[in-house]
Amino acid sequence: MEISQLGEFGLIDRLTQGLPTVNPSTIRGVGDDCAVIRNHDTDMLVTTDLLLEGVHFDLTYVPLKHLGYKSAIVNFSDVYAMNGTPKQITVSLGISKRFTVEHIEELYSGIRLACEIYGVDLVGGDTTSSRQGLVISITCIGEADPDKIVTRSGAKDTDLICVSGDLGAAYMGLQLLEREKVASVGQKDFEPNFAGKEYLVERQLKPEARKDIVRELAQAGIVPTAMMDVSDGLSSELMHICNDSGVGCRVFEERIPIDYQTAIMAEEIDMNVITAALNGGEDYELLFTVPLHSHDKVKDLPGVKVIGHITKPELGCAMVTRDGAEIPLQAQGWNPLK
Amino acid sequence: MEISQLGEFGLIDRLTQGLPTVNPSTIRGVGDDCAVIRNHDTDMLVTTDLLLEGVHFDLTYVPLKHLGYKSAIVNFSDVYAMNGTPKQITVSLGISKRFTVEHIEELYSGIRLACEIYGVDLVGGDTTSSRQGLVISITCIGEADPDKIVTRSGAKDTDLICVSGDLGAAYMGLQLLEREKVASVGQKDFEPNFAGKEYLVERQLKPEARKDIVRELAQAGIVPTAMMDVSDGLSSELMHICNDSGVGCRVFEERIPIDYQTAIMAEEIDMNVITAALNGGEDYELLFTVPLHSHDKVKDLPGVKVIGHITKPELGCAMVTRDGAEIPLQAQGWNPLK
Repeated sequence: MEISQLGEFGLIDRLTQGLPTVNPSTIRGVGDDCAVIRNHDTDMLVTTDLLLEGVHFDLTYVPLKHLGYKSAIVNFSDVYAMNGTPKQITVSLGISKRFTVEHIEELYSGIRLACEIYGVDLVGGDTTSSRQGLVISITCIGEADPDKIVTRSGAKDTDLICVSGDLGAAYMGLQLLEREKVASVGQKDFEPNFAGKEYLVERQLKPEARKDIVRELAQAGIVPTAMMDVSDGLSSELMHICNDSGVGCRVFEERIPIDYQTAIMAEEIDMNVITAALNGGEDYELLFTVPLHSHDKVKDLPGVKVIGHITKPELGCAMVTRDGAEIPLQAQGWNPLK
Repeated sequence: MEISQLGEFGLIDRLTQGLPTVNPSTIRGVGDDCAVIRNHDTDMLVTTDLLLEGVHFDLTYVPLKHLGYKSAIVNFSDVYAMNGTPKQITVSLGISKRFTVEHIEELYSGIRLACEIYGVDLVGGDTTSSRQGLVISITCIGEADPDKIVTRSGAKDTDLICVSGDLGAAYMGLQLLEREKVASVGQKDFEPNFAGKEYLVERQLKPEARKDIVRELAQAGIVPTAMMDVSDGLSSELMHICNDSGVGCRVFEERIPIDYQTAIMAEEIDMNVITAALNGGEDYELLFTVPLHSHDKVKDLPGVKVIGHITKPELGCAMVTRDGAEIPLQAQGWNPLK
């Protein structure tokens, strides 16, 4: 069977079906942003990401330092998405012949910067040559209070659906970078034009993990009922939460947070900006649900927006458009196996 | 600067120079078989390996199930090498187009078998497409008693140097597989000839991690002063221990354990069998040092051989040949960056 027929999640489901766990310390295995390993009254969170040249990044326009930074951030984001704090990472690199020591130092400087800013220790890894492109595999270990871990499966009917920041900008940044790459072909001394769209480029090349939101929630005394980070697109992530929690949802088109640069770029390339926000991915914002009674608390949190609510499962997952129509959500996010 | 000028360990030293750690839970970072993360009275061990097609394995003669098994084992081995017990792994795969779902299931069946035998839980990972060959990145998390963790840096003058099993067989297995691969070129219905050399093939394709040795040591009440696993070759590993412990060593040629199949194969390909044992690598045996007064205990341990002793640092690292000559050890083991 072709792997693309199953897609990433289908393949993982098939490979890990009926997978037993034998160690009592293994609290949660495959199926969330992180695995959970219990040790006395602390839970360790473990997450890992594999980034391959030509699939996940294009070195034509991604500076190595930014790539290092982002490679670390995407892992930190998974730990925050469980309401934890990232503490350690291991970094494995497969390096092809065209890279010099200075190149790898540049990549590392981005990883080190991310570690410094987020208070994470680089504790190990593996370094080898690669016959093909650059390979980056990072594993992050975090800590969380067992009583405060937030999985994808706790959303309940009437909960409010919240999202941090804005969506679709990283995807539009990618479109912009690809457009300038095409424009540069065969041109000497080409200068890419990012004027007025700096935010999009930054969201694509140097995303941040929402440590601040996790802190705000803790300070406000809010423990979300479900949470995950938006890496594959809002639509796909909403469906994960609804599926794992056994509920449905309604999100409102007019409530979905979109930056004006994202809207301008969408217009320029003649794309529906809501499609970009729903399916673009790589936003690394936090999507979470809170009980209805927390409404007064979350509505005042800076950078957080209530975009809808959880429903009974039989209502399915849908977006309510500005004119009141209901469009079923589809997981059209990025499929790394296609 | 060319990366091959520095080699793997030189590059890692350069990249991780002056790397601070900020979390009190980070007990030990880069520089041993595993990182050590403390959590109350238990230490978590973390190790990771990146395996790339064309660099670490050749699918012409490596069955996918064996590859999966070995990929897990090499990580377990690093945890045992710190006197710990592997508990969880994450598995990330980069899969190129030529693989079907059934291929990946085959690979996974080997990983699952290794997990079953060694009592390890598969708790997560990442799955993506690869533009090039197969990419396997496994991270293993283990547990250890903080009082019993064994690093590379505790060897002391007069300590005995011990090694489990025998050395050089995996390397000879690789030579054999490569020889049969060459012989098969252009031949229809080629049947490789492994008669009388099954052990070599097994050592290359299906190595085991020495869980049994760690248990034996514990039962005998022995805590080694230093330990690591033999993955890059005895010579390279001895120099790591001596370097990190600030000592020298003498190992005796006649004491180095070699299987008769290894010796026969070495003769067939006209190679010095001791060179294979010193530099071959991939043995995944345990190399450790114990205080002199433990001699009576270790000499009776099944599968363990005393091969030499630790000296003062000024004596350097050398092998004493059968005729009494001293040959300085050199780290000629496998360099993944050359």
